[in-house]
Amino acid sequence: MSDALKVALLGCGTVGGAVLRLLSEQSEDLAARIGRRVEVAGVAVRRPDRHPDVPADLLTTDALGLVTRPDVDLVVEVIGGIEPARSLLLAAIGAGKSVVSANKALLADDGVALHAAASEAGVDLYYEAAVAGAIPLLRPLRESLAGDQLRRVVGIVNGTTNYILSRMAETGAGFGEALAEATEAGYAEADPTADVDGFDAAAKAAILASLAFHSPVTSADEYREGISAVSATDVARAAEIGCTVKLLAICERVAGADGADDSVAVRVHPAMIPTSHPLAAVGGAFNAVFVEAEAAGELMFYGRGAGGEPTASAVLGDLVAVARNRLAGVAGPGTTGYAGLTVRPMAETPTRYHVSLDVADKPGVLATVAQEFAANGVSIATVRQDGHGEAATLVIVTHRAPDAALAATVTRLREMSAVRGVTSVLRVEGLS
Amino acid sequence: MSDALKVALLGCGTVGGAVLRLLSEQSEDLAARIGRRVEVAGVAVRRPDRHPDVPADLLTTDALGLVTRPDVDLVVEVIGGIEPARSLLLAAIGAGKSVVSANKALLADDGVALHAAASEAGVDLYYEAAVAGAIPLLRPLRESLAGDQLRRVVGIVNGTTNYILSRMAETGAGFGEALAEATEAGYAEADPTADVDGFDAAAKAAILASLAFHSPVTSADEYREGISAVSATDVARAAEIGCTVKLLAICERVAGADGADDSVAVRVHPAMIPTSHPLAAVGGAFNAVFVEAEAAGELMFYGRGAGGEPTASAVLGDLVAVARNRLAGVAGPGTTGYAGLTVRPMAETPTRYHVSLDVADKPGVLATVAQEFAANGVSIATVRQDGHGEAATLVIVTHRAPDAALAATVTRLREMSAVRGVTSVLRVEGLS
Repeated sequence: MSDALKVALLGCGTVGGAVLRLLSEQSEDLAARIGRRVEVAGVAVRRPDRHPDVPADLLTTDALGLVTRPDVDLVVEVIGGIEPARSLLLAAIGAGKSVVSANKALLADDGVALHAAASEAGVDLYYEAAVAGAIPLLRPLRESLAGDQLRRVVGIVNGTTNYILSRMAETGAGFGEALAEATEAGYAEADPTADVDGFDAAAKAAILASLAFHSPVTSADEYREGISAVSATDVARAAEIGCTVKLLAICERVAGADGADDSVAVRVHPAMIPTSHPLAAVGGAFNAVFVEAEAAGELMFYGRGAGGEPTASAVLGDLVAVARNRLAGVAGPGTTGYAGLTVRPMAETPTRYHVSLDVADKPGVLATVAQEFAANGVSIATVRQDGHGEAATLVIVTHRAPDAALAATVTRLREMSAVRGVTSVLRVEGLS
Repeated sequence: MSDALKVALLGCGTVGGAVLRLLSEQSEDLAARIGRRVEVAGVAVRRPDRHPDVPADLLTTDALGLVTRPDVDLVVEVIGGIEPARSLLLAAIGAGKSVVSANKALLADDGVALHAAASEAGVDLYYEAAVAGAIPLLRPLRESLAGDQLRRVVGIVNGTTNYILSRMAETGAGFGEALAEATEAGYAEADPTADVDGFDAAAKAAILASLAFHSPVTSADEYREGISAVSATDVARAAEIGCTVKLLAICERVAGADGADDSVAVRVHPAMIPTSHPLAAVGGAFNAVFVEAEAAGELMFYGRGAGGEPTASAVLGDLVAVARNRLAGVAGPGTTGYAGLTVRPMAETPTRYHVSLDVADKPGVLATVAQEFAANGVSIATVRQDGHGEAATLVIVTHRAPDAALAATVTRLREMSAVRGVTSVLRVEGLS
């Protein structure tokens, strides 16, 4: 066998450590699959003294020197965050190295620039691990479904929020209590903002939308709403209408009206989905992504979305592909922006709302409320009215309408004298 | 753009028709993704007069002439069956064409020979559509998980039997009644043997096992048992222990005892699985495949396993990959048999049984029955005993034991005087 392929590893935390372990344990298998042995050329870390398990001669603090070393063929980046990862990857690509990254924030923000650099240098940029951990998702989207037209990608792509919402549904706890439990159980970080406020899911949604619709989408283009405002009442109301609450990353192709071009709607927010929907059963820290394509119909991909080992599995799958491409002297399919669809503003994106109201139990209230929906051009799908003494509860699910019209309706309802309180407002997805 | 890539289509039934339609509708997208236009060079059919929708100058009855035409680059085979598909594909490969096939029977029987031919000719042989229709499964197995070690692949890969078993569970009907309903609804063929007796699932299991374990497995190596013996009682008993009955294709890596090499166990049979298992919720004609890997953990792939459009979607995904490889002058990753694991006989494969017995309700019967399990080296996991008058029911679930030991135990139970009848015997999967 000829000379080994040399890999530079950037970062050696949980994921990096698992990558090193798998590279060693699976070395025979990897060599058989790639056709060449793979060797670690070096591991760039900030504090070498914190990595006693890694051979000292591999450790370096000079990441830039490592990724531009002439003998390095492939670079694996598991540092995360924008800088220094961005500069290091651009330097690696500029030096002709192929790159595997698990960095969702970077790919979501700077995917277009990184892809352009990789394409110009004729090298690969793969990042299966950046979305939904071990679940093979990006490769199916960009390769298996390459002959199909995608309509919609809806995912549970953040394990922390899914764990919290699952516990709220199971125990009736409020958000704060469930978050405390998740922190205790190790499912939430000390600062849970990135997860709880939907930043992590939004980065993944940007990557998914870009691949699914061959159009550049960044996190900044998206509507984003986290789960901290989801109440025990919201979860209970969901159960009453046969639904469960999930934080969803939703990427849709929306047909243009009157011959206008199609556009892409990308959003992250909590939503009620029917318990019969395949995503509803995805509990705890698991991830799943539901895909609707013209010809393939409905597909779902399910698995562990985080953790060192699952993420390392995705990194190594990419590494095998990138290594094979390098030996063959080719680059794999990149991300293409040829469709160039624009991102639709949230206000104009069609959504459905669930609204629960406490109202006075007297004749005419339903008519008044219904009139308010109609005045905003919102069509009601179902209403349930439960009287109890002098008060009544109205539970309303709308048809699809522009999000702004729905939001405006809710604002008006809050001002109506017949409405004593709006007790729950949440979008609804997955209803036929 | 340079000359178009030319595709020969073999067969023009439901799938072939959908392939032609997608090639036409998606032609702009396909050209953008491949970097070259794709053109249909010809369509080989037996009866040209039955295809009025296909331009007459494309139709031919000379399939061999078509696949060896010098201007043809790629061959798509959707004829099915062993011959003439086998000879045509070998001729195409011999003439240097890359091949996309949806032919599970052929790949299961002759995959090794076809792969060897493709490898020698330096061309691609892709067949995502052969297993689980539109569900991206083979590409994830052979590429995304290439850096991981697979433990187990368990699939619901036949929609007809899943529809029948789903209806039995929903309505309490027996097998015959549910089959009649499936035939009526168009989910079962006039001759349902291939589906109902597990031949279709067994072919898919052979393909999955070969890819998952890098070892040659054919249908002939497998244990196969269909669903015609599954009774309404079996389905009811499953529900009583929190399970549901599914026809499963199971491919496992079994550790060798005392330093012996690992082996592969491949089998298709009905089994009870817990309703909490992700596969249990897969109803109707849907397919799903559950994968357990060392590092990635548990994964599941779900979607439509049959039908013209979904299958055509998978064919076109392969076509894009094969076309890109051809333009780059490379071949994609083939199937490798480097692991060379042997297939373990069913008798020695560890399984678990559920057994329901009618017994006389008198002291000592349970002890006698339990003794029979012990005598065969089978350990009991749970027993439920329900007395009703002078008779009682015993519901037993065993731990894992060699299948032959479990089968021998059941044979002995049937002969015992204290046992009035063995009312249900079914293997159990997915219990922890």
